Amino acid sequence: MAQPQQSEGAEPEKPPLRVGMVGYAFMGAAHSQGWRTVGRVFDLPRRPVLAAICGRDGAAVRAAADRHGWAAAETDWRALIARDDVDLVDICTPGDSHAEIAVAALAAGKHVLCEKPLANSVEEAEDMVRAAETAQERGQLAMVGFNYRRVPATALARRMVAEGRIGRLRHVRVTYLQDWLVDPQFPLTWRLRREHAGSGSLGDLGAHIVDLAQYVAGEQLAGVSALTETFVRERPLPGGAVQGLSAVSADGGTGRVTVDDAALFTARFPSGAIASFEATRYATGRKNALRLELNGENGSLAFDLERLNELSYHDGTEPGAHAGFRRILVTEPDHPYLDAWWPPGHGLGYEHTFVHQARDLVHAIHEGRQPEPSFADGLQVQRVLAAVEESAEKNSVYTPIAV
Amino acid sequence: MAQPQQSEGAEPEKPPLRVGMVGYAFMGAAHSQGWRTVGRVFDLPRRPVLAAICGRDGAAVRAAADRHGWAAAETDWRALIARDDVDLVDICTPGDSHAEIAVAALAAGKHVLCEKPLANSVEEAEDMVRAAETAQERGQLAMVGFNYRRVPATALARRMVAEGRIGRLRHVRVTYLQDWLVDPQFPLTWRLRREHAGSGSLGDLGAHIVDLAQYVAGEQLAGVSALTETFVRERPLPGGAVQGLSAVSADGGTGRVTVDDAALFTARFPSGAIASFEATRYATGRKNALRLELNGENGSLAFDLERLNELSYHDGTEPGAHAGFRRILVTEPDHPYLDAWWPPGHGLGYEHTFVHQARDLVHAIHEGRQPEPSFADGLQVQRVLAAVEESAEKNSVYTPIAV
Amino acid sequence: MAQPQQSEGAEPEKPPLRVGMVGYAFMGAAHSQGWRTVGRVFDLPRRPVLAAICGRDGAAVRAAADRHGWAAAETDWRALIARDDVDLVDICTPGDSHAEIAVAALAAGKHVLCEKPLANSVEEAEDMVRAAETAQERGQLAMVGFNYRRVPATALARRMVAEGRIGRLRHVRVTYLQDWLVDPQFPLTWRLRREHAGSGSLGDLGAHIVDLAQYVAGEQLAGVSALTETFVRERPLPGGAVQGLSAVSADGGTGRVTVDDAALFTARFPSGAIASFEATRYATGRKNALRLELNGENGSLAFDLERLNELSYHDGTEPGAHAGFRRILVTEPDHPYLDAWWPPGHGLGYEHTFVHQARDLVHAIHEGRQPEPSFADGLQVQRVLAAVEESAEKNSVYTPIAV
Amino acid sequence: MAQPQQSEGAEPEKPPLRVGMVGYAFMGAAHSQGWRTVGRVFDLPRRPVLAAICGRDGAAVRAAADRHGWAAAETDWRALIARDDVDLVDICTPGDSHAEIAVAALAAGKHVLCEKPLANSVEEAEDMVRAAETAQERGQLAMVGFNYRRVPATALARRMVAEGRIGRLRHVRVTYLQDWLVDPQFPLTWRLRREHAGSGSLGDLGAHIVDLAQYVAGEQLAGVSALTETFVRERPLPGGAVQGLSAVSADGGTGRVTVDDAALFTARFPSGAIASFEATRYATGRKNALRLELNGENGSLAFDLERLNELSYHDGTEPGAHAGFRRILVTEPDHPYLDAWWPPGHGLGYEHTFVHQARDLVHAIHEGRQPEPSFADGLQVQRVLAAVEESAEKNSVYTPIAV
Repeated sequence: MAQPQQSEGAEPEKPPLRVGMVGYAFMGAAHSQGWRTVGRVFDLPRRPVLAAICGRDGAAVRAAADRHGWAAAETDWRALIARDDVDLVDICTPGDSHAEIAVAALAAGKHVLCEKPLANSVEEAEDMVRAAETAQERGQLAMVGFNYRRVPATALARRMVAEGRIGRLRHVRVTYLQDWLVDPQFPLTWRLRREHAGSGSLGDLGAHIVDLAQYVAGEQLAGVSALTETFVRERPLPGGAVQGLSAVSADGGTGRVTVDDAALFTARFPSGAIASFEATRYATGRKNALRLELNGENGSLAFDLERLNELSYHDGTEPGAHAGFRRILVTEPDHPYLDAWWPPGHGLGYEHTFVHQARDLVHAIHEGRQPEPSFADGLQVQRVLAAVEESAEKNSVYTPIAV
Repeated sequence: MAQPQQSEGAEPEKPPLRVGMVGYAFMGAAHSQGWRTVGRVFDLPRRPVLAAICGRDGAAVRAAADRHGWAAAETDWRALIARDDVDLVDICTPGDSHAEIAVAALAAGKHVLCEKPLANSVEEAEDMVRAAETAQERGQLAMVGFNYRRVPATALARRMVAEGRIGRLRHVRVTYLQDWLVDPQFPLTWRLRREHAGSGSLGDLGAHIVDLAQYVAGEQLAGVSALTETFVRERPLPGGAVQGLSAVSADGGTGRVTVDDAALFTARFPSGAIASFEATRYATGRKNALRLELNGENGSLAFDLERLNELSYHDGTEPGAHAGFRRILVTEPDHPYLDAWWPPGHGLGYEHTFVHQARDLVHAIHEGRQPEPSFADGLQVQRVLAAVEESAEKNSVYTPIAV
Repeated sequence: MAQPQQSEGAEPEKPPLRVGMVGYAFMGAAHSQGWRTVGRVFDLPRRPVLAAICGRDGAAVRAAADRHGWAAAETDWRALIARDDVDLVDICTPGDSHAEIAVAALAAGKHVLCEKPLANSVEEAEDMVRAAETAQERGQLAMVGFNYRRVPATALARRMVAEGRIGRLRHVRVTYLQDWLVDPQFPLTWRLRREHAGSGSLGDLGAHIVDLAQYVAGEQLAGVSALTETFVRERPLPGGAVQGLSAVSADGGTGRVTVDDAALFTARFPSGAIASFEATRYATGRKNALRLELNGENGSLAFDLERLNELSYHDGTEPGAHAGFRRILVTEPDHPYLDAWWPPGHGLGYEHTFVHQARDLVHAIHEGRQPEPSFADGLQVQRVLAAVEESAEKNSVYTPIAV
Repeated sequence: MAQPQQSEGAEPEKPPLRVGMVGYAFMGAAHSQGWRTVGRVFDLPRRPVLAAICGRDGAAVRAAADRHGWAAAETDWRALIARDDVDLVDICTPGDSHAEIAVAALAAGKHVLCEKPLANSVEEAEDMVRAAETAQERGQLAMVGFNYRRVPATALARRMVAEGRIGRLRHVRVTYLQDWLVDPQFPLTWRLRREHAGSGSLGDLGAHIVDLAQYVAGEQLAGVSALTETFVRERPLPGGAVQGLSAVSADGGTGRVTVDDAALFTARFPSGAIASFEATRYATGRKNALRLELNGENGSLAFDLERLNELSYHDGTEPGAHAGFRRILVTEPDHPYLDAWWPPGHGLGYEHTFVHQARDLVHAIHEGRQPEPSFADGLQVQRVLAAVEESAEKNSVYTPIAV
């Protein structure tokens, strides 16, 4: 295989940042695209190198390495984190292995990027935060991969809220609607089993919207009142290998769905703003409808991931005769991340969030500062999810978020 | 020139339906337009006559009678319901007087149309239902004015759900977003005082969306978990007369807001579907955003009152390559109410709902059958609102709807 | 009960404006709704009275009078214009009779409102302008019914252009897309015969967009280059009566379509702005898509009749990071015509344009000033249409508009 | 520098396809991203290698090579095409050099990909076609880079038209609206000088929409009637280097704009369908609004590049009550190119068109068949543009396209 530092690096004199990635399914492909592209588009202080990729199936991981451009392949994550030529471990596995890998990687002296949700339980997440704090004293950094903070439109929304453009916050409403479970014959993949996924829509989609809403609002939730539901409780067992969102048709028996299909909750922010959240995989026709709206005393912002190059903004201080929600095409050079890309109107796609995530992480590591969102941020989201589950079990009673 | 029954009536031989209306503000103007127009557009078995209008201020009510075309004016609603030339009493006053007027009008032998919400309390609404049941034995009919059932697009949505087009229901999400209270200096109108309005966004907007969601879904809510908030607790007292949504600037002191500014709740339907509701007057830039979406196993429907001539429909049984939410322009002759109006694409407006409401009521009276929604339907909505308030007071605990 | 002048009039002391209308099909119904409603909603200096309606079929016109609320019915338009109790003649017939009726009505001392297009030829239109000029010396006024100037959103667009908000004009693009001829079996109604309709899409739809574009832009076209097409040249003869846009299925032979199905043209304004126009009845799925966009040096405006309560506005002087096309919901009290209607967000419909047209005409008559658009404006549109036809016949060569 | 064939290739056993690219501005960056990514996402029969990049400024081209991952850099395109390690020459320079480079590259035995427009004149394009035909006999292939055929939504539109889903074509309307010249102080870049750019909006934007409209419609234009305009005839000279769409503020004199600012034309297709086209850089607020609509007897399709993951489709054979333009989110696995990307709803961006273009070209080269669009297709577009200019000079007279 190749001399990765030569072919992948932008300039020879820049120090490399050698990445070792665990997992090569949907997230692995997306992260690979991010690492491969970031140094070609952004000016970076370090040169990302796709050093090694890890997966349990030797043939499959070697094929993935070839496909995605990783210099080496491993079949044991312990071997990966032991490699001298890896500076950063990027964890793209299901949530049940995040804690073990992340803690070990930090112990092995690596920086860590861990996919969301941080863990499958608050306890695991707390372990990870402790490990990250200890590692930080040694100069290692850890970040959780809430990539939707890196959509230019959501980053712009955050900036506008921070600038005070919508004023005192009153309402936040967020949904994350998908529909890939609406067919009762869709098989029982790992995402539908609590032991692997931790929870269902809640951890997969709900974690995203909790993080994103808090990030854009600039404050963390105080408490929630929740309702969850599993519409289809028994599903065919998958007949073969199932990865990511895809699945093969079943041949054989059925198994029990042990996670939620949908989660709804209302919430309060410390500032007095109130919020509603919905995560579901049963919203027929909605493919990736992460929708966020914030209403403040002086304005409003709205975003829809299905139209990710746009941000809606209502300036409430304008004269009523000319006011209205405007569709900002978030492709101008002074929009977040956009100075490195194409001319106005030439939109970006989903995978660019991973390029931007890589960019921000490389800068943080170079500067030795904590990247955002931190493992502590990931833990806090985990606590919100735990409060949601607790409230749902207790007749939706309002449940404060632990701090 | 013609006698009024000739110029106002469609055909001389049709028996009149003589209407007496109480109230002449926003709802009075809208109902007047409905009664004045309905016989000009639809073929009706009876001829609506704008017989008399009633309001406490003599000069104002006479001006309203002239403006809106009512033949006579009264200043005491008791006198109005005592008139021999009134067959139907149309109640357009604030909610605190609904019960008394409606019960008396039914006792006086009149049909009754009562604006929503039916009453300010469950107890009042129960009295009204009892009065309506007794009156019905005498052939009098009573209806509550949830006019948004009469938007052609919502009526079409109801028809499509009833036809089974979206299949088993999974999700309902409804918001009713306005923004006219976002300015803390907006004065304390009657709509912000519990003794007149019963509740705030909940009774005003929430009542609409509870009724509409249940109507389109074809089932009634089982229980709710709710959170309410009053963002601005003290407001300037109005300096002069305040009617409807308008208000003059205050000159003087301030008063306490005694109703909710916003109400959020999640809910369950007996079928297993789950729902979320939000009513607010603080959604900056949203003027009349009653938005309804239903997701079923085979399809979805979505509606937005700010674009009331449209219904979004996703047919989940189509091949994925060509499927998508379609924008049905609800202006075709085979859409509800549309055969009487204009060619395709020539849209209707808000006030047409009152024309359609009048049409449906005239037919029901002529045929001697219960118009929908009945007072019992109005009571059931009241019970949902009561459960919302109860849940909000009890830390959002899930609260079944009384039956 | 009241005398009609009381029930129909807003205030007894106001002088009446007695209307006699010729025609009772689609336009007749729309104008009736306008005259019936205008005095109920707007404060008018005169009280419109629906005095008499005229149509050739005695039974049908009497039914229309009853339906729409006209006090008397005539079967000969000469009798109608001879009536003493008619102050204004409202002409809602097909274009081939406009000139004769309008000239006679003006000669009979009446004010005249004439539906668009003003006439079927430039010559007829010139006769009408001469008659109107003569009549104006006697205090009679004449107006042509380009009702789309009276959509609040288009009136707002005009106001914003006049205020200089979009700056120097560069581009105008307008389409009027319908689809009711897309089926080759749709029968040969009067609108498809040159002798009745003058032209096809061009006179029906093209006249609207020429007038509207010039009105909003604030200048008149200098010349055009055009292409017209008749896609389906032979159609079934209608088997029975055909009115408006509707038609019965044919039983019998076929006949020749003698008008254009579609007309496309580019144009120049004297200011240097350039424009494109398209009128068609073959745009499958487009029901009433009158779309107008203006791009100026400092901003842009866009309108779509299928969403008539909205105006899109881009303020080009804003910082790029927050700029975007905003959707103005044209329902605020300071929007044109809106102070008389409903609260913000409660939209209007197609027919309201006729209410507004009646309002503006009543005021102009009361004040003795020329209402807009005048017959001269109608003639100018006719000259544009003639230039379009001339250019289309001459290989699309650029053809100046006669002045 | 690196051993490019090892690190960039997907599998060692695949034969490489070694690319040499001329130009490194906007198009160079986009093509680089395409070549770098295509083998990571798609299964290709050959392995693209970024062998060498060429530009006149030595330091700049070496920086570009590093940035974009090209193994070598040249400052003379003649040296580039002479390299043994280049199989394919990718021409990303302004139009005035296309013919010379392409003809020489073909003579040197290379495959060629040439950016659009193919050339600055019909004569140059004809030379290129001849060279391509000769080269094809030797097994070399040539393609012109109309990348907008490779948006999944436009490719889907083409497929649906070819499947007969919209039936007999009646209307095509296309615009390509940008606004980067609206400021009269924007400097005189190479794109505004005829000697470099050939034409203005016409060649830059008009070439795209002519090709795209013909591709989706499946037929070539018969003739056009055109109007062009240069709104701002004198502009500041750029004070420094100007690349792509960007420009520095001027310091110094002004120069004459020698190309069109906008071009409007109507057109006829041989099938009888009629079309309208507009290309402009003065549509304030429109950043990249390439909008295409086709109306057929049985349906319609509409696309907007500013929302490139969506295709609007109206199925005219559906019952009217449920018909409407549907928004197909073109992100399903059975949509063109999508099986290699992300799950449904996870949209793509502008640059993906270059990945898809590279994919299609690699397959065509591997299979030894002519890639589409060919140089002959590019010549035909050039002939349309020439007819547009000829018509515009001749008072818009209808001008047939030479064949």
